[in-house]
Amino acid sequence: MRLYMGLLHYPVYNKRRQTIASAVTSMDLHDLSRLARTYGIKTFYVVTPLEDQQRFAERILDHWIKGYGATYNPHRKEALELVRIASALDITIREITAEEGEAPVLIATDASRRDAKIITYRGAMGIIDSGKVVYLLFGTGWGLTESMIKRADCLLDPIEGVSDYNHLSVRAAAAVILDRLMSRDRGV
Amino acid sequence: MRLYMGLLHYPVYNKRRQTIASAVTSMDLHDLSRLARTYGIKTFYVVTPLEDQQRFAERILDHWIKGYGATYNPHRKEALELVRIASALDITIREITAEEGEAPVLIATDASRRDAKIITYRGAMGIIDSGKVVYLLFGTGWGLTESMIKRADCLLDPIEGVSDYNHLSVRAAAAVILDRLMSRDRGV
Repeated sequence: MRLYMGLLHYPVYNKRRQTIASAVTSMDLHDLSRLARTYGIKTFYVVTPLEDQQRFAERILDHWIKGYGATYNPHRKEALELVRIASALDITIREITAEEGEAPVLIATDASRRDAKIITYRGAMGIIDSGKVVYLLFGTGWGLTESMIKRADCLLDPIEGVSDYNHLSVRAAAAVILDRLMSRDRGV
Repeated sequence: MRLYMGLLHYPVYNKRRQTIASAVTSMDLHDLSRLARTYGIKTFYVVTPLEDQQRFAERILDHWIKGYGATYNPHRKEALELVRIASALDITIREITAEEGEAPVLIATDASRRDAKIITYRGAMGIIDSGKVVYLLFGTGWGLTESMIKRADCLLDPIEGVSDYNHLSVRAAAAVILDRLMSRDRGV
C-alpha cells in the first residue's frame, strides 16, 4: 500500500461558504495521526498556509516527539512521527511524487457532494490494491472548496449512516473512511 | 434497531491502570453525539459520578440545545438532543429497561483485550437485527475496567487496522465500530 493522507486547512469553506484558512486543532493532529498509524498511512500531511498555525502544529509535534510527551506517552510519538507540516497541497504532491517516483491519485472526500467524479469504496480499494500511489484529502471547517474537488482525480462516495444526517466531525469521518478502505478483514 | 450507547467516565483505567473517574470532554460529546445521530442510536448516555462533570456536560448541552448554539448550528442541537447525562451505569440500564420493556444486552468495547466473551461484528449485528435491545459501552481514559468487562454480556472484537498499533481515540474507535455494525450497504 502506498497511501498518503492530507488534512487541508486551506482552501476550505466556513459556515457561510466563504473560502477560508481554518485553525489547526490539537485534537485533529492526535486523532488523525493515530488513525494514520493504525491503517498504514505512509505520511499524514497537515496543510496550512498560515505560519502561526504551522508553528502551533510544530510545537505539538515537538512536545510529543522530542519533549516530555515522548516519554510520557510513546504511542502518541509513534503516531505523530507520521505527520509532516506543509504550506500548500502542491508541495505535498511534489514530495510524494519525488518519494514514490510517480504522481499520486488524488481522492477528495466530502460529506455530501455528488459529482461525476464519484468513486465508490470498492473502486478506491481497487486503485489502492493496484499498487498506485493514493493521496486521500480531507477538509476541515465546512469542507474542501469546489476548486479542490475539481483538482482531485476522484471524489469518494459520502458516508451514509442509517439516517439522513451527514455532519460527522472530520475525525469520525476519517476513521470510517480509513476503516472502509483498509480493513479487509473487518469481521463483518 | 433498538441501539443505545454509553460513554463511561467511571470506572475506567488511567495510564497506571488505576481505577479513576475521567473528565468529560466537550469534543467527545460533540463527536459521539453526531455519530449517534448518524447511525440511529436512540439515546447516548454520558455516565459520570462526578457532579461537577455532570454540570459541565449540562452546560454544553444547554448552550447547543437551548442557548445561542441552537440557532448558530442546528445540526449540533439535533445531535446533542440524543445525549442524557447519568451518574451511574445502573441508572441508564434501568432507564433503557423501562423504556423498552426488556433489559438491554450489554456489549462492551475495548482496544485490545481478548476474552471468552468476545463477539465478532457479525455476531453483534445478528443480535441487533434480531430486534433485541443492545447497549454499546465505550470507556474513556485507558479503557473500561475488568469489573465492567465482567459485567457486560459480550466484549466486541477489538478493531484491527493494518498494523499492530491499537491506540485509537474513543472518538475514532466509536466511529469505526458504529460504521461496522450499522452501515449495511457501505459500498465496499
